[in-house]
Parts: sequence; C-alpha cells; structure tokens
Amino acid sequence: MPAFTRLVRFLARNGKIYYGDAILPQGVTDLAQTKKAKIIDGNIFGQHQVTDTVVDVWQLLAPLAFESVRTVRCLGLNYALHAKEAGLPIPKYPVLFYKPVTSLAGPTESIPVHKQAQESLGLDYECELVIVIGKTCSDVSESEALNYVLGYAVGNDVSHRDWQIQRGGSQWSLGKGFDGWAPYGPGIVSSEVIKDPQTLKISTRLNGKTVQESNTADMIFNVKKTISFLSKGHTLLPGDLIFTGTPSGVGMGRKPQLWLRDGDIVEVELEGVGICTNKVEFAKESANL
Amino acid sequence: MPAFTRLVRFLARNGKIYYGDAILPQGVTDLAQTKKAKIIDGNIFGQHQVTDTVVDVWQLLAPLAFESVRTVRCLGLNYALHAKEAGLPIPKYPVLFYKPVTSLAGPTESIPVHKQAQESLGLDYECELVIVIGKTCSDVSESEALNYVLGYAVGNDVSHRDWQIQRGGSQWSLGKGFDGWAPYGPGIVSSEVIKDPQTLKISTRLNGKTVQESNTADMIFNVKKTISFLSKGHTLLPGDLIFTGTPSGVGMGRKPQLWLRDGDIVEVELEGVGICTNKVEFAKESANL
Repeated sequence: MPAFTRLVRFLARNGKIYYGDAILPQGVTDLAQTKKAKIIDGNIFGQHQVTDTVVDVWQLLAPLAFESVRTVRCLGLNYALHAKEAGLPIPKYPVLFYKPVTSLAGPTESIPVHKQAQESLGLDYECELVIVIGKTCSDVSESEALNYVLGYAVGNDVSHRDWQIQRGGSQWSLGKGFDGWAPYGPGIVSSEVIKDPQTLKISTRLNGKTVQESNTADMIFNVKKTISFLSKGHTLLPGDLIFTGTPSGVGMGRKPQLWLRDGDIVEVELEGVGICTNKVEFAKESANL
Repeated sequence: MPAFTRLVRFLARNGKIYYGDAILPQGVTDLAQTKKAKIIDGNIFGQHQVTDTVVDVWQLLAPLAFESVRTVRCLGLNYALHAKEAGLPIPKYPVLFYKPVTSLAGPTESIPVHKQAQESLGLDYECELVIVIGKTCSDVSESEALNYVLGYAVGNDVSHRDWQIQRGGSQWSLGKGFDGWAPYGPGIVSSEVIKDPQTLKISTRLNGKTVQESNTADMIFNVKKTISFLSKGHTLLPGDLIFTGTPSGVGMGRKPQLWLRDGDIVEVELEGVGICTNKVEFAKESANL
C-alpha cells in the first residue's frame, strides 16, 4: 500500500525532479493546483516514505518517470453513448489498443501536431480515467483487481480520426500514437482515497466550453472487470497505464464535426483528481522530410 | 556504428548473462548454433567494445534485455499474397499495431497458451523480419533510414485469430499480445553485415514441414520506407523493435485451416540470421481464475 495519498511528480526551482505527496488547501481536490508537496523518498512502487521535507512545486510533470511506464493499454468504445456516436455496436469484450510510451506527456505540456496529422481533418480529444497499476498482476479476479491499483489519473487520448480510421487500414494505432498524444495527470490519487472509481464525474472543456460530460458510472467494463480481463494471459506491470475509454461528445460524433485547431486549449477533468490542460500546437515545419 | 557483427545475449554456465559477439564455425550463419562468443563490454547502443574474452554459450536469450525494449511495433498485411489470403486489400499506408513488451521471449522459449486462448480455435504462426532500432530517430528520410538500424532478427508474431479478429472487436491487440507471443532472435545481425535487408529468404516450419516460404523482396513497404513512415511524428528509440509483417502461408489462410496444437514445434527462419525454435505449450491450469 503506498504511503502517499496524492502523488505528483514535479520540477522544483532548484532544477531537480521530485516525487511528492501533494499539499492542497482545504476543499481543493484539483492536483493541478498543487503549490507545495512533501518529498517522497524511495521507490513509489515499493519501499518508500513520505518525508517531512516540503518543497515548492514549480512545474508539474507527467506523474510517472518515462522509464517507469512499460505499456499503455487503452479501451475503445467503453461508454455506450460513445459507441453509438461512433456508429459501432456495444462490444462484447473490452476492445484493446495500445499507445506507445513516446505518446505520454505531462499535464501542462502542449499537444504537438506533426505535419503528417495536419494533411487531413480529424484531430479530436477524449477524456479518460487512467488506471495506474501498482503491482505485477496476472490472471487476477474481479474481486481482487483493485488491490493491484496504485491510483487514478485523468488523461486525454488524443486521436486523429482520418489516420485512426480511414488511413489506419482498420487499426487505430497510427492515429493515436503521435508523440505527446497521451497527456495525463495532473497527479495520481491513491486507490486508498478513491475507493470507488465508478462514481466520478468526467468531462472535457474546449476553449472553456464543455464538450464531454459524463460519469465513470457509465462505463461498460468497469475498472475491476477491465483489469481482470486484461490480465488474463497478459502480465500487467507496476507503472502500466490503462486508459479506460471516453464518453460521448467527441468532435467526430458532433454535427457538424468539431476538430481541434492550432492554439486550442483542451482541459480534461476527473472528479477528485483534477484537470489536465494542454494547448494544441501545430508544427510549423517538418524537420527532415 | 556497433563494434559487433552478430549480437547474442546468453546465459553462461556460471549463471551470468552476457552480451556477446557470436563466434560461428566457417560457413554457418544460423545464430542458434552459437556455442561461443566474445564478451561485449559497455552499452550496446552506445560506447562498447568486443573484448577478447571468449565464453561458452549455455542458453541463448531474447537478444535484448527486457528493460532495453520500449516499444514493439508491427506491420500487418505487408506481403501482397498474405493480404490476399486474409481477404483484405493491399494497404495504401503501412498498417500499424503494437505488441506489449511482455509478449517478448527468447529464441528457444516455449510459447505459453493461456486458457483464454484455448477456448476457441485460431492459434497461428507468422514469421517476420524484425528491425532493431539502434539510435533515436524522428522524421527520418528513406535514404537515411538504414543508418538508424542496429541490425535484424527473426521473430514469430504469434496470433490467435478468434481473439484477434472476431472477439477483438476490430482491433488486433488482444489476440496478439499474450505473454511470450513475440519470440525473437536467435541474435541480431548488424546492418553492417546485412547491408540489403530486402534479399533474404524467410520461412516457417511446423513440426519440420515448411508452411511459409518467401523472400523479404516481396514486402510491400520495405525496411527503409517502414522506418521513414513510422518515424513521422513518432520518435523511435534505441531498442525499439519493428516486426515487418508476414508472408502468405499462415494457418488461417489454408484450406483446411491449420491451427497450432499443444506440443507443436514452430521454427521461423531468416536467411543470414538463423532460426527461432519454439514449442507450443498449452497451459493446463488457469492460475487464479
């Protein structure tokens, strides 16, 4: 069981990167508001302790070090209304895909849009509850599944619908795996604090306007079922992330369709965890092509 | 440029794991036959040297340490006859999917078949040329692409067609990502030795009988095009693997269909690199389910 309740990873003014247990003012739950944290010593997946040393947070980073994440699993079509807006049937089994670790980014980083993703329309947002695995597990039952969770974050499964669907040739990987297209954070709230992950409001705001608004209660495969299912014959490792799918309201499903543009500000929010705020940044030049 | 020509990773009789440059008898090119190797000191992706210390190879392991592989990319439908046997059109762009790092295994390990993959028919083999990335690259041109290759291996993209296609809900991930379903090896032959990766015979034998037989000349997207394309907006890291797709002859495309059974021996071979030999092993008990 982790010693922390609200894990943040951050750059301090001294130029060092720390893991910390966030100190939030009374009544505030958005980890993006973290100004101070108690330094954590040790391995956050193993022996560690929250020290009494308080440090100012200068910039929040992706909640886990790049080396600590081995696999990013994602579910598609895990909210009934989203499956409907995508014109696809409710799946019988969880629909799994992966994002590469190079798509991970922090809660305030820009979302880089490569020239390749500017050629055609289709840049879209997807707010998602992100499960952070805390212990190695394999063939875990639904009743035991939550014991393997370190905590929860919120993430944006940034997607380019043309590369995902038409040009992807049936597989979604190309249109979802660009560098920086899986911002998550702002921190990780321990599963000791969020005992029931199926009661949380989840939403997206685009330039301040709410475009997705739902509740994790509406997931087709809840967190327990998802972990149990994915762990069958597939070993889940500490630091593995599971993006659990997005509710309705994505740009693709709107009439008229709504695509992200250069300079747009996208906020994805999960109740009790906080807000990831990322600016869309179209690349002006393609490096070596 | 690596100092080695034929990289193997192995367990020695002293219980230690080494990287080595394989010593092969005159005329032998199959790295699976490696009995002795010169120890490599240092970082195989950076500063390293081949020493004069020769050690006996007891058991060949997956050619890269588990920690060194961040992402396993795979192409689907990259040989025209295989696309035809799968009943799918020739793709306009490379069709990308991922396997999790937990699917990686060594060149002599058994292929474990979990109960989940025994419920229905569909266990299949796929011999593939595997590109090993040696240096970080992003937006690399086709003409520069081979400069980023450490070398080549052969791999088996083990697949369960029911989980891949019918139960997978359009995404291939579930049916290709089981633990141990990406054996590769037997070692990595440097791109200094294999200067042209598009002239190599590639084949699969099932219990001694040839079931796939082709040449990498028949790839739709060759190694240069594949690396250049995948690197657009996606950073490739040292140690990343790219499985480049399989030729025709898979069990799914045969009449009658041919599925792997408990105890089967599958050999995938790439000219100039060698043979990966893996035994299919059906799990008798499901651990905790």
